[in-house]
Amino acid sequence: MRLIIVGFGNVGQSFAKLILSRSADLYSTYGVNPRIVACIDKKGAVVCPSGIDLQKLLDIKKIKGTVVEYRSEGCKSLEDDVVEQTDSDVLLELTPTNLQNGEPGISNIISAMRSGKHVITTNKGPLALAFPSLMELANYNNVMLRFSGTVGGGTPILEFAKRCLKGDRILSFKGILNGTTNYVLTRMEQGLSFESALRDAQEKGIAEATPELDIDGYDAAAKVSIIANWVMGMKKTICDVERIGIAEVTLERIEEAQKRNNSIKLIGMTENRKLIVRPMEVSKFDPICVNGTLNAVTFSSEHSGQQTIIGRGAGGMETASAVLRDLIEIKNSVYEM
Amino acid sequence: MRLIIVGFGNVGQSFAKLILSRSADLYSTYGVNPRIVACIDKKGAVVCPSGIDLQKLLDIKKIKGTVVEYRSEGCKSLEDDVVEQTDSDVLLELTPTNLQNGEPGISNIISAMRSGKHVITTNKGPLALAFPSLMELANYNNVMLRFSGTVGGGTPILEFAKRCLKGDRILSFKGILNGTTNYVLTRMEQGLSFESALRDAQEKGIAEATPELDIDGYDAAAKVSIIANWVMGMKKTICDVERIGIAEVTLERIEEAQKRNNSIKLIGMTENRKLIVRPMEVSKFDPICVNGTLNAVTFSSEHSGQQTIIGRGAGGMETASAVLRDLIEIKNSVYEM
Repeated sequence: MRLIIVGFGNVGQSFAKLILSRSADLYSTYGVNPRIVACIDKKGAVVCPSGIDLQKLLDIKKIKGTVVEYRSEGCKSLEDDVVEQTDSDVLLELTPTNLQNGEPGISNIISAMRSGKHVITTNKGPLALAFPSLMELANYNNVMLRFSGTVGGGTPILEFAKRCLKGDRILSFKGILNGTTNYVLTRMEQGLSFESALRDAQEKGIAEATPELDIDGYDAAAKVSIIANWVMGMKKTICDVERIGIAEVTLERIEEAQKRNNSIKLIGMTENRKLIVRPMEVSKFDPICVNGTLNAVTFSSEHSGQQTIIGRGAGGMETASAVLRDLIEIKNSVYEM
Repeated sequence: MRLIIVGFGNVGQSFAKLILSRSADLYSTYGVNPRIVACIDKKGAVVCPSGIDLQKLLDIKKIKGTVVEYRSEGCKSLEDDVVEQTDSDVLLELTPTNLQNGEPGISNIISAMRSGKHVITTNKGPLALAFPSLMELANYNNVMLRFSGTVGGGTPILEFAKRCLKGDRILSFKGILNGTTNYVLTRMEQGLSFESALRDAQEKGIAEATPELDIDGYDAAAKVSIIANWVMGMKKTICDVERIGIAEVTLERIEEAQKRNNSIKLIGMTENRKLIVRPMEVSKFDPICVNGTLNAVTFSSEHSGQQTIIGRGAGGMETASAVLRDLIEIKNSVYEM
């Protein structure tokens, strides 16, 4: 399978390492033989129809800071329309999430689908802003759009709901979908002020220098909208999510909750088909009441009851493993049937 | 699809109700149109090639206590070899678990596979005693053997590990696999003696009158062997599981653990490819540390980290929903490809 990688940061590089370490096994177990025919980062693109040497690409990226410096016979650097112009089977859209307008993700995804390529993305922006229309475009072009890594990192929350509960109907979901805010709230429960807890998270590399995306609940809201579309068939965007972040959560409120054996958690959920993200009191005995950077989601289904799935919500290699799962799914669905 | 149901207790009757309530949706969404051509309980069998009226069957079972009294045009009561002699696509083996010799489950499963029928079972006995050879027989006869309901009831623990973590390698697992013992240990943590906690569980219908299967860890050991075979490719039986039950767990030990913010839980796990069931101290902050009748399993995988799945481990309708999932999977794998 010929792949284009757009965005060669943490997830992209982890994916390259994953492919390198697993190539023999991937072919023998799943019949997947990935060949990277183009790689694009902020500085430009390298295109190599016969396949890019991934170890060399990783080395160049590390030394020079960009893939554009990769040189090899038959390879060229391109500026424009690389996604559309390069022959390939699948686009891996791994650029950072932009919840303002979804770019450059949305344009990359649309270019790929229009030129008949399947798309795997870890970018929440395009889906949070335009899930229904992107899915329609995928159907129209008869290609697959997959995005396991957008919710839960390596934790297969979306697959779980869609595949493992097949034959059942999911009626609602409720969960902790953002590791950064969960870490901050966990530290506050240990007595730190909001400001100290946030600083601690930033020092540990858990929170960004500009943490609003997490703290104000935008990241969780993006994930709520993606789950609602994919699992429950709702046609909603992030704009439909009623959203309150954790900036106003006080130590007093947390202490009050603890007296009742409860915790304050930033919960994303559906309620009467409304989408909600807000700090809520959760019993410490509820399985979703996890601490630190963990994520947890409970699905309520018609016949098989409540099911909770818990895991780390982030991490380069974890998210890369989600991309690989998507790739295997596309391979199985498209090329074997 | 023509189905034979063997065992018409709680799970069998729940499955019949599930099919009745979902027939339109099952056909439109999954293309599954189940027709029950035979039903067998302890007293005998009714065979009806044109399809048994499930509502009538449920009523008869309720009033007369057996399916043998079902009468309808074209139907007959049979005594012997019903599984082998009746034309059908899938056998649902729903008889109670027998960990002594696996009967009548093993014989039913073998008869079905030999006569070219796929098998879905909720019976842990045959798998715990003979997983490797039953799987070989299924392959030899080119039929599918599925058993989602044997581990976790409605909680799709096996599918989760097998499907959702596709492309990854599961290195180990660790979990609470028996709701009855978990309920007893939870009550003991609240101060009840082992005997009082067990009596309470029996009064609530959570523990059996003869509770050794649960208390002595046999049920958990059966599940450990099934997970080890299915998810990790180990060729093991329940006899390979090092097993200690909860009968010797003292209140003192539980109190000591609580001082360290830990709980005593009956844990089933792999360790250096050994299979183990025994009471262990688990941190209250570990996601698998669930209370009451809940089950929880953590899978550790090579790339996507640790994932925990939590849900009720039993229940007639929950387990019936697992049977339906298996049926849909068989339909998709066999009849559409």
